[in-house]
Amino acid sequence: MKVLTSPKLSHVEVTSDFWKRYRELIVKEVLPYQWAVMNDEADISIAEDPQNNGQDKNSHAVANLKIAAGKMEGHHYGFPFQDTDVYKWLEAAAYSFNYHPNEDLQKITDELIDLIAEAQDDDGYLSTYFQIDAPERKFKRLQQSHELYTMGHYIEAGVAYYQSTGNQKALDIATRMADCIDQNFGLEDGKIPGYDGHPEIELALARLYEVTKEKRYLDLAHYFLNQRGQDPEFFNKQIEEDGEERDLIANMREFPLSYYQNDKPIKDQESLTGHAVRVVYLCTGIAHVARLTGDEDLLAACKRFWNDIVKRRMYVTGNIGSTTTGESFTYDYDLPNDTDYGETCASVGMSFFAKQMLNIEAKGEYGDVLEKELFNGTLSGMSLDGKHFYYVNPLEADPVASKGNPGKSHVLTHRADWFGCACCPANLARLIASVDQYIYTEGEDAVLSHQFISNTAEFQNGVTVSQTNNFPWAGDIHYTIENPSGEDFKLGIRIPGWSNKTSYKVNGENKSLSVEDGFVYVIATDGTTTIDIELDMSTKFMRSNNRNVSDYGKVAVQRGPVVYAAEQADNEIPLWLYKVNTKEEPEYHFDEKLLDGVGVLKVVADKPALDSENDDLYVEDQEQELIPSTLTLIPYYAWANREDGQMRVWLNK
Amino acid sequence: MKVLTSPKLSHVEVTSDFWKRYRELIVKEVLPYQWAVMNDEADISIAEDPQNNGQDKNSHAVANLKIAAGKMEGHHYGFPFQDTDVYKWLEAAAYSFNYHPNEDLQKITDELIDLIAEAQDDDGYLSTYFQIDAPERKFKRLQQSHELYTMGHYIEAGVAYYQSTGNQKALDIATRMADCIDQNFGLEDGKIPGYDGHPEIELALARLYEVTKEKRYLDLAHYFLNQRGQDPEFFNKQIEEDGEERDLIANMREFPLSYYQNDKPIKDQESLTGHAVRVVYLCTGIAHVARLTGDEDLLAACKRFWNDIVKRRMYVTGNIGSTTTGESFTYDYDLPNDTDYGETCASVGMSFFAKQMLNIEAKGEYGDVLEKELFNGTLSGMSLDGKHFYYVNPLEADPVASKGNPGKSHVLTHRADWFGCACCPANLARLIASVDQYIYTEGEDAVLSHQFISNTAEFQNGVTVSQTNNFPWAGDIHYTIENPSGEDFKLGIRIPGWSNKTSYKVNGENKSLSVEDGFVYVIATDGTTTIDIELDMSTKFMRSNNRNVSDYGKVAVQRGPVVYAAEQADNEIPLWLYKVNTKEEPEYHFDEKLLDGVGVLKVVADKPALDSENDDLYVEDQEQELIPSTLTLIPYYAWANREDGQMRVWLNK
Repeated sequence: MKVLTSPKLSHVEVTSDFWKRYRELIVKEVLPYQWAVMNDEADISIAEDPQNNGQDKNSHAVANLKIAAGKMEGHHYGFPFQDTDVYKWLEAAAYSFNYHPNEDLQKITDELIDLIAEAQDDDGYLSTYFQIDAPERKFKRLQQSHELYTMGHYIEAGVAYYQSTGNQKALDIATRMADCIDQNFGLEDGKIPGYDGHPEIELALARLYEVTKEKRYLDLAHYFLNQRGQDPEFFNKQIEEDGEERDLIANMREFPLSYYQNDKPIKDQESLTGHAVRVVYLCTGIAHVARLTGDEDLLAACKRFWNDIVKRRMYVTGNIGSTTTGESFTYDYDLPNDTDYGETCASVGMSFFAKQMLNIEAKGEYGDVLEKELFNGTLSGMSLDGKHFYYVNPLEADPVASKGNPGKSHVLTHRADWFGCACCPANLARLIASVDQYIYTEGEDAVLSHQFISNTAEFQNGVTVSQTNNFPWAGDIHYTIENPSGEDFKLGIRIPGWSNKTSYKVNGENKSLSVEDGFVYVIATDGTTTIDIELDMSTKFMRSNNRNVSDYGKVAVQRGPVVYAAEQADNEIPLWLYKVNTKEEPEYHFDEKLLDGVGVLKVVADKPALDSENDDLYVEDQEQELIPSTLTLIPYYAWANREDGQMRVWLNK
Repeated sequence: MKVLTSPKLSHVEVTSDFWKRYRELIVKEVLPYQWAVMNDEADISIAEDPQNNGQDKNSHAVANLKIAAGKMEGHHYGFPFQDTDVYKWLEAAAYSFNYHPNEDLQKITDELIDLIAEAQDDDGYLSTYFQIDAPERKFKRLQQSHELYTMGHYIEAGVAYYQSTGNQKALDIATRMADCIDQNFGLEDGKIPGYDGHPEIELALARLYEVTKEKRYLDLAHYFLNQRGQDPEFFNKQIEEDGEERDLIANMREFPLSYYQNDKPIKDQESLTGHAVRVVYLCTGIAHVARLTGDEDLLAACKRFWNDIVKRRMYVTGNIGSTTTGESFTYDYDLPNDTDYGETCASVGMSFFAKQMLNIEAKGEYGDVLEKELFNGTLSGMSLDGKHFYYVNPLEADPVASKGNPGKSHVLTHRADWFGCACCPANLARLIASVDQYIYTEGEDAVLSHQFISNTAEFQNGVTVSQTNNFPWAGDIHYTIENPSGEDFKLGIRIPGWSNKTSYKVNGENKSLSVEDGFVYVIATDGTTTIDIELDMSTKFMRSNNRNVSDYGKVAVQRGPVVYAAEQADNEIPLWLYKVNTKEEPEYHFDEKLLDGVGVLKVVADKPALDSENDDLYVEDQEQELIPSTLTLIPYYAWANREDGQMRVWLNK
């Protein structure tokens, strides 16, 4: 028997209609729009944005770089991490060149690289707030400064830009930053024995190591992960020296240590809590460095934290972060639908975490969660026109409540043009533009296919895998493997947890394949092999673990990976009156004219008549006549693209 | 036919076991405890109180008066309205003398009157914060100063103290205050054309008018009501002059005008919103002055606002105020149970409002709401030992949620020793101590009996009405009227809205009495007349108007006027798992050993097994086996008197 080896991927071309629409939107609308905003040239106003923090400019992010580069006069404006908006955008642009070469855009991005290089200090430091307005405070208040977070985001962008365009300068900026950080941080005498208040540098350095193979960068990432929480008072000591009241960001001193995941060393943390985005960025770095170093403590930690989030703290749409206070996790099974946060960045970050876990072990659960994020909790962060964004992604919304109850004022029922803290828009753009990188991993002896996103993948040994389907709307999935390599090619295909009965044909013949840890495996010998998979696309009524009070007695409707929502645009309000009949199979049809083409569900329901305002507020409960009705559902990701109105994911039974 | 006239009440003695327990508790525990706290002599600490605002003393309220009186050195401490804690306590003590003469206590209160007199300025002004620390700012920032609110509370106390003890000095302090206010406020040249940020002075002046018959006081109350909102910018103009940043209470500038009910004149307000206590204190004043003046606009306004609150904004327990942000109302039918505020003071204030409405017209609805408040939303504000208090009264609580979700951090699952803003404890004390004043009103031709609180009432014409019952536990209500007056005596008895079938005997014979606007009327001619009423005490499952999303599909359990709650002390958690069977009649028994004697309900329910933490967070919904179970309920007012735990009023069906 031949020893199988998994060949290396050389190229993936996404051919999925669903994803091509989004990826072309990135090129045609999202990138130009975001560039205009960051250059303060878009005709928008963020004054009404609840995340705005009283800012009166839209962005100023590019201007900050120009000032730091000496090309413009003025002060820094915005958050200390304002630079990262530009870097995430640059990274998204870099990915877009892989599927949509674009000379005009590349002229802009090449010039942007030049500008960033000019803004960078001689020692490699780059964080425009400190360079322009507080050079004496560099690395002096890391709890709030986001300096390593900011440089981490550049490093990610620089690596991506170098990889897609070959621009060496982009990579050099990144290595100079990493060298600067290496010279300033560590346990050696004269270095700062600390770490950033917002994880990001760890995952960035791991990426930089993978492209440069410079072990110092991996060691530095490993250092940051090991050092975190060793001295829980590190931030407070810095703050005392820097001057208690001189906050860079208001209220950030008030959060407990666990908010920053530095109350204990990572290996001693049973569970991570606090700011959801910090948690998943940290987990992404842990998983990445665990794989590269083989550190068993970190490996155990990322599996533990994964389980913690997925089993007890994640919304059915993949959103995470149950409270607006600090954009944070709360406690196990606390998943309120109408006051949640579910930050777009947290879902994007959870996708990064899942991507790293895919590389650690062949377990379908990682791809299942990634799929949940890709088709629900991340995409909901952007409107179908690519120019409006959600920071907060509720699972239940009502414009009257958002306006009338201060505890829900963070829940917007229409996406905003932009944000004072604009972390989400470009974060989502870089995920969509790089979705080709989330489809396959190279396992030890098999290539693993994690996502049903139509594509053609070429491998270095000449093997080609073509996947065609009409996912997420249809469940017939086709693979054609051309194998001229002379070696067997083993393909593992993730079979989603939601597919109750799945049938397989290999080369046209029915096969009974067994699912091992979420995957079926097919060995493609010489020539052409076809695999046809029929997934169970029946509509499912999902319930939550009954330790979760918010969803008890309710159902969420899911078809394939897509979680559905009821919207006022399709249904008479109030939406809470409907009681869904889970015994009746919902009717499904694809409506190509609706919301740029979505699968629509009609669910059998009934509801009592709406009480009158003249009726008493409390009456004796009596059997109420129920009116047969139908509830129309659309995919959650596509909500709030029509008129303002109520929305609900969890429906009464 | 003789013309009936309603005689005047001369004395009411409460004989109800239920209320005697509470009223003796006021004398034996509540008044001594609160006096000790206000003198900073109680062994407690309010440092952990979420309402504490960073205060490091327990009260300092009496000390502030001593400093203002020149009997002690030092600065004012606490809120600008800290004095009112003392005045409300004094008022409660005054009422207690009516049923429990107490020489030792009266020595203290007489001396307190002397102290207050010494603290009062020559011109009648009294607000210790301004006298001690900011004399130049008197009446300069009324939005936040609470000066008229503070003096209003003294006026109420002074009137009550004069009425129960005959202490003329107590009344003189009040009239001197009213004179001071009269000299400073009004539309005449040189006067301030304004009003207080917190209504109270209006109702206080109306009370002062009733005892002094000095029309200037009624006119002044009327002025404040008419002037409110005539110039919506009045507060802001004062703030601009006083200096924008010099807030007396942080964040109070941030609320909209409607928070202070001064965005429009009262007669133009469709609905009152904002701070719940301000609203009901204002409504109490409106109703009182409307009755005394016959002002039709005010009369229409108080009826409109009553309807607004009772029909669309009141919890089933009588609590009001749906959000912790500003302790405020939100919007119609927004009644979340786990994040509500339901301030004890707001329920007490709603009782004041109801009391005034009782005097306006003979409609049973006012007594129904008052009864709801008396047996539920007010009493829940104090522990059975009389030494622990709730500011916030939730209808659903979970210690894990209060600790783990910042949006619920205001919800305590155990009553506190005291508060930084200690408005509630003495407010509840004065209500309980004066409950005898809430039983009867003198209608045009009939005496109206509004509450089933056993008592003996004597009237000036020699008529005696004795009411005996074991309410709220039993529904057999007995009246004995002794009428030696030679005139017919007409008694109207409110029949509660919850009593579906009520039977009557007059002088031992069955009678069919018709309910008119909530009352049955019996005419007692010479001699002895007995009335026996049998109320419907069956347990009722109540539902909310289905415009209220929070209670949809749920039931609250009520027996007589008492609303019940499930507590962890009696039931396996989580409480949300239970599905109540509303077809089965709950079992009722009175447990004299439990919670100082309460009626207990056992409700038939079933529930699924609790899912495991190892189970997936989301699974396909399937028919779940339900385990037959029983839910034990105790009266809502008595919750949180045992170990910390979950509590729910609204139960799943």
